[in-house]
Amino acid sequence: MHISAGFDSGNIQVLKADSCDDIQLAIHKDHQSDFYQWFHFRLHGERDQQYVMKITNAGGAAYAPKGWEGYQAVASYDRQTWFRVPTEFDGQNLTIRHFHEEPVCYYAYFAPYSWERHQDLIAGSQQSLDCTPVHLGETLDGREMTMLVVGDEAATKRKIWVIARQHPGETMAEWFMEGFIGRLLDDEDGVARALLNDNVFYLVPNMNPDGSVRGHLRTNAVGVNLNREWQNPSMAQSPEVFLVRKAMEEKGLDLCLDVHGDEGLPYNFLAGSEGTPSFNDDLKAAQDSFKEALLSVTPEFQTQYGYDIDAPGEANMTVCTNWVAERFGALAYTLEMPFKDNADLPDADYGWSPSRAQQLGEDVLTALWRHLK
Amino acid sequence: MHISAGFDSGNIQVLKADSCDDIQLAIHKDHQSDFYQWFHFRLHGERDQQYVMKITNAGGAAYAPKGWEGYQAVASYDRQTWFRVPTEFDGQNLTIRHFHEEPVCYYAYFAPYSWERHQDLIAGSQQSLDCTPVHLGETLDGREMTMLVVGDEAATKRKIWVIARQHPGETMAEWFMEGFIGRLLDDEDGVARALLNDNVFYLVPNMNPDGSVRGHLRTNAVGVNLNREWQNPSMAQSPEVFLVRKAMEEKGLDLCLDVHGDEGLPYNFLAGSEGTPSFNDDLKAAQDSFKEALLSVTPEFQTQYGYDIDAPGEANMTVCTNWVAERFGALAYTLEMPFKDNADLPDADYGWSPSRAQQLGEDVLTALWRHLK
Amino acid sequence: MHISAGFDSGNIQVLKADSCDDIQLAIHKDHQSDFYQWFHFRLHGERDQQYVMKITNAGGAAYAPKGWEGYQAVASYDRQTWFRVPTEFDGQNLTIRHFHEEPVCYYAYFAPYSWERHQDLIAGSQQSLDCTPVHLGETLDGREMTMLVVGDEAATKRKIWVIARQHPGETMAEWFMEGFIGRLLDDEDGVARALLNDNVFYLVPNMNPDGSVRGHLRTNAVGVNLNREWQNPSMAQSPEVFLVRKAMEEKGLDLCLDVHGDEGLPYNFLAGSEGTPSFNDDLKAAQDSFKEALLSVTPEFQTQYGYDIDAPGEANMTVCTNWVAERFGALAYTLEMPFKDNADLPDADYGWSPSRAQQLGEDVLTALWRHLK
Amino acid sequence: MHISAGFDSGNIQVLKADSCDDIQLAIHKDHQSDFYQWFHFRLHGERDQQYVMKITNAGGAAYAPKGWEGYQAVASYDRQTWFRVPTEFDGQNLTIRHFHEEPVCYYAYFAPYSWERHQDLIAGSQQSLDCTPVHLGETLDGREMTMLVVGDEAATKRKIWVIARQHPGETMAEWFMEGFIGRLLDDEDGVARALLNDNVFYLVPNMNPDGSVRGHLRTNAVGVNLNREWQNPSMAQSPEVFLVRKAMEEKGLDLCLDVHGDEGLPYNFLAGSEGTPSFNDDLKAAQDSFKEALLSVTPEFQTQYGYDIDAPGEANMTVCTNWVAERFGALAYTLEMPFKDNADLPDADYGWSPSRAQQLGEDVLTALWRHLK
Ligand SMILES: [Ca+2]
Ligand SMILES: [Ca+2]
Ligand SMILES: [Ca+2]
Ligand SMILES: [Ca+2]
Repeated sequence: MHISAGFDSGNIQVLKADSCDDIQLAIHKDHQSDFYQWFHFRLHGERDQQYVMKITNAGGAAYAPKGWEGYQAVASYDRQTWFRVPTEFDGQNLTIRHFHEEPVCYYAYFAPYSWERHQDLIAGSQQSLDCTPVHLGETLDGREMTMLVVGDEAATKRKIWVIARQHPGETMAEWFMEGFIGRLLDDEDGVARALLNDNVFYLVPNMNPDGSVRGHLRTNAVGVNLNREWQNPSMAQSPEVFLVRKAMEEKGLDLCLDVHGDEGLPYNFLAGSEGTPSFNDDLKAAQDSFKEALLSVTPEFQTQYGYDIDAPGEANMTVCTNWVAERFGALAYTLEMPFKDNADLPDADYGWSPSRAQQLGEDVLTALWRHLK
Repeated sequence: MHISAGFDSGNIQVLKADSCDDIQLAIHKDHQSDFYQWFHFRLHGERDQQYVMKITNAGGAAYAPKGWEGYQAVASYDRQTWFRVPTEFDGQNLTIRHFHEEPVCYYAYFAPYSWERHQDLIAGSQQSLDCTPVHLGETLDGREMTMLVVGDEAATKRKIWVIARQHPGETMAEWFMEGFIGRLLDDEDGVARALLNDNVFYLVPNMNPDGSVRGHLRTNAVGVNLNREWQNPSMAQSPEVFLVRKAMEEKGLDLCLDVHGDEGLPYNFLAGSEGTPSFNDDLKAAQDSFKEALLSVTPEFQTQYGYDIDAPGEANMTVCTNWVAERFGALAYTLEMPFKDNADLPDADYGWSPSRAQQLGEDVLTALWRHLK
Repeated sequence: MHISAGFDSGNIQVLKADSCDDIQLAIHKDHQSDFYQWFHFRLHGERDQQYVMKITNAGGAAYAPKGWEGYQAVASYDRQTWFRVPTEFDGQNLTIRHFHEEPVCYYAYFAPYSWERHQDLIAGSQQSLDCTPVHLGETLDGREMTMLVVGDEAATKRKIWVIARQHPGETMAEWFMEGFIGRLLDDEDGVARALLNDNVFYLVPNMNPDGSVRGHLRTNAVGVNLNREWQNPSMAQSPEVFLVRKAMEEKGLDLCLDVHGDEGLPYNFLAGSEGTPSFNDDLKAAQDSFKEALLSVTPEFQTQYGYDIDAPGEANMTVCTNWVAERFGALAYTLEMPFKDNADLPDADYGWSPSRAQQLGEDVLTALWRHLK
Repeated sequence: MHISAGFDSGNIQVLKADSCDDIQLAIHKDHQSDFYQWFHFRLHGERDQQYVMKITNAGGAAYAPKGWEGYQAVASYDRQTWFRVPTEFDGQNLTIRHFHEEPVCYYAYFAPYSWERHQDLIAGSQQSLDCTPVHLGETLDGREMTMLVVGDEAATKRKIWVIARQHPGETMAEWFMEGFIGRLLDDEDGVARALLNDNVFYLVPNMNPDGSVRGHLRTNAVGVNLNREWQNPSMAQSPEVFLVRKAMEEKGLDLCLDVHGDEGLPYNFLAGSEGTPSFNDDLKAAQDSFKEALLSVTPEFQTQYGYDIDAPGEANMTVCTNWVAERFGALAYTLEMPFKDNADLPDADYGWSPSRAQQLGEDVLTALWRHLK
């Protein structure tokens, strides 16, 4: 038996791996940070053997204990299908038990989305004449920050921004973008064509390339939580935000979605900008309209569970959604998907999954069309 | 140059084919019927050559002149992608002009859906444990009438029927079913899973196999228009309706969609059972609810254009939708898609297409979920 | 339970189908002929049920008893994967026993190759600029006889002919052609590119469209065995041969393969033109060279088992291979593949299969290159 | 315009990129080494713009000038199809000129083979029950050294080793392995099944993971040329060789192929162990037999061009092929493929390519079967 993490977004420390039923592991902290919860490793064992893997520092993870309660880890033999495996949390250890049908099995906090796949997404998208990738600048590790511009940048078009994966371990956010972009570029899709008649899209499918490749949960190459940088981003600490904010200023912004994953709640939900100084009835009406539209297209969305709403004037203005809403007077939402499952429609085999996140991305397009009509 | 129709749903008569710029053709009438408008043929010519094909009896077709006005024929080199080619109607002749980039090109009234593909649809669907194909009986030419039962047939479940392609030349109806069925059997699709919690589906993707293979527009093997047989179907004249009606009686019915194509109107629309004796406010409310739901999920649907609404008590009770609504007191709709394009979202390359019909099938599932919630 | 054959190449008569363990069937004779052995039907039954199907007239089939000894029928749930099922022959009845994992299962003498797929093969091939489909004429049922010309028809090029499926039930012959054509048109395949430098190919992937669609074993629409028509073909009785022979005369011929399936022998083998009047040492040397080349590229070929070699001057000159060899003084071979399996490399799951036939088609290209070098 | 290499196997230094027609670049040396020639970068520019890229230190590359003479760089818009682009060498600069049809284009020395794809290859292979991946140990950067065991490890089976990509920039070696492995695991392939009857395969598709990911030409993470380490490998300097050599000792070895790319010669060729102390007539006969077998299955192989043959006793025993041949008294060959093209079958569009390397991998299986028969 051998356990390793020598690959894109790999993250595990092996403490003990000499017995199949007592494997002891730990998650590395994000570099220059105390956050940790993302794991991704490969166990090279044998066919027809049970493995019991204990993540011994789970109790100190960023979203412990809430993130581990009711959580099932994902596993894959072929790196395409990621299924859930029996997982328990005892307050300190997260224990995964799995009977190997194949020698090699990968395990992760959620289905990974690699930097290679990200590049395929960009390269594939430009095959559509409706789409132009734009280079915004580089990250601290020297990776490209790429924005996709979809549609015609006429002055009369509304400017819709969707950014994803500020927190790199929230890979469902990039799976969501894959569904969103794929449908938006489908030239026989009516919703996409109707939207492109009146809107132009600015899409950043991966806001945090360095954290993604490094196997971080929440921060970039220097341990910075990007979603606390929107008020004062810098090229030294948070070039990812600095560059995207600059592009927003240049292009303008009429609506913004910031796509995330939530470690605790087993639901899809939206979080708005209610606590910003300028929040008003018009924005409230726009919020309600979009929420209603999304409710009407998918049972995967709901409004019962979510974050507490900020009291007036008490918003954290370093957060993307709040900064954007205030700066542009525009509808801005944080969209959260579960790491676990959607408890309204539980799926014991896969839980919340890449397919479901992609479909939600497609459905959000329908909701946008409905809302903007 | 050679023109032939010796294949599934082929229909053409060659009057003159000795010169590329003056090819004269005629459409065969449906067997034992005067209806005709479906055509499907193959022109085996040469690369880089212009062909001008004149369908000389277009003026007498079932939906002339309205069906030919603004109509563009479909063509395909690879039998997968069907694109529109320049087509004109002068009151009598329908003239198709096309420059061949490949030697062999197929032409049709709409993208064909073959009996082989139908069998693949049935065979593929049964791979899902949620789906059981049921043999209802045989057509006059000896083909199988197959119904797919999707979901658990518990007494408490609502029974939703969707039937398609009573008129065999309306192939978009079976493309629609392919999208509908594919999504309904996707075990990671939230809409499908939510629907299957409370409903069971009875689906007949091809109501008219004989007409389909024979290359008919509107009738079965003995020239009978199935959508005028619902009051008194017989095994001798209309076994297709007889068998499905019998299954409806056995299984029960809470909602029914009958999927069609309309030769004239360049829109998707619904036609209801307003003229039936028992039509009432509850049914009207149900109609409105479903229409509203569908309006909220796709710009491909609209309610401005459609058929005239029957006056109270004046419904033709031989038509599926009316007979079903009356017999079961249930919401019943005829769903019509265009042969031409959706004029609200015109696509010069493809017009209304298999992809768009499939997507509408998927979107109707969303509307059903929304309506039934 | 319902058994039907209302589809492309369907052939079965149901004598009794009221009990799962005593289903009695018969194969229809080819139209206007006494030949029969091809069967293809669909049993619509139930999941988790055993079916025992008895073909009661198997004893009188064209290749009984030899063809049924050691023979296992093929079955498919999805119409893509055809696997072998337990089959026994008692001298009169061929009994197939199969436990259904899905409700609908298809059964056949060998994996079918439909007329729809044939058209896809032609349509797909023309996407390569190296390939031009040529219309030769029509069959008695009005289907197209199509030849693919691959490569540049320069006078200096050798002319290689490959024709297949004179006997329509020998579907492996068209699967073979699919592999052969696919590789020949692969513009990154070295063997293909080397061959096209010096040769032009004339390929007829289906010599007998009418028999294929009708579900015949051995004859065309009027019961004629095409491989006995080469000396005196006629448009009235054997237009398929008449048209191809005419094209051979026009184009010339340097080498010819006629691809078949053999009902009895569980081997791949070649049968030559030894009994023709002009057979000579040069032809013998060419035969040996090609045989040796094929032996060196695949263990699926062998030379131990095959037909008896005709004594000098005793060839049946109505057979394609003999007529061609004599007329053009060229190397001509009949290539036979098994209906059963290759006993040198038995595969209990699939027996001889579409994949293996395709691969043999690819390997024959290598052998041709080697032989012609 | 922006040029970057922040991804798997990326390697470029940007000296000047302010003008489309005078882009100046340099290749980084392998870490702790003076070797360099591999490059891989992405140019994010604009549609319909010409870019002239000059690699200014090409003259000092490992295989200059020979490697650059007649060389054309590869480019890709979609990261799947890699085509050749106009490239010139003037003795010092390698100049690539390319008109962008899409904004983003990747350039490389040869089509890259990523670590992600490597993991997919391992994960996919284990789906076959004939294949078991074995973990051999870790590289200096902490990546897994994985061997695939294919077939039954019975004592009576011949042990055939194939290793690839000791030099990481020779990515065609891993494309070759993909073809080789894919065919060997195809359970309907006759050659594969015949081979597995008598042989077991030990396959190392990537001998140098660290160099691969780092974008090296020739060395591992600490600048060591693995193909000079076979006599005295160490865990400190060359664990890759140490681990594989150990496995060879444990498992035994009857035949070995070491797969490479050659920077200079535009041909596929074999290099043997003639200069080893124990080289003898038997080995010479085995060499000739395998060469002859490979010549008989593909025009992509030839024996006219290749390396000079070592004089007796003058072999460099640190090289894999020589060490293996001497140690096991077995047939050992280095298989070389071109970076450029096969001049015997030139392809102006693609040159030597992933497809052709895969096909050669498949053909080597045929040659092995033929040789071992
Ligand atoms: Ca989060
Ligand atoms: Ca109609
Ligand atoms: Ca035969
Ligand atoms: Ca080399």
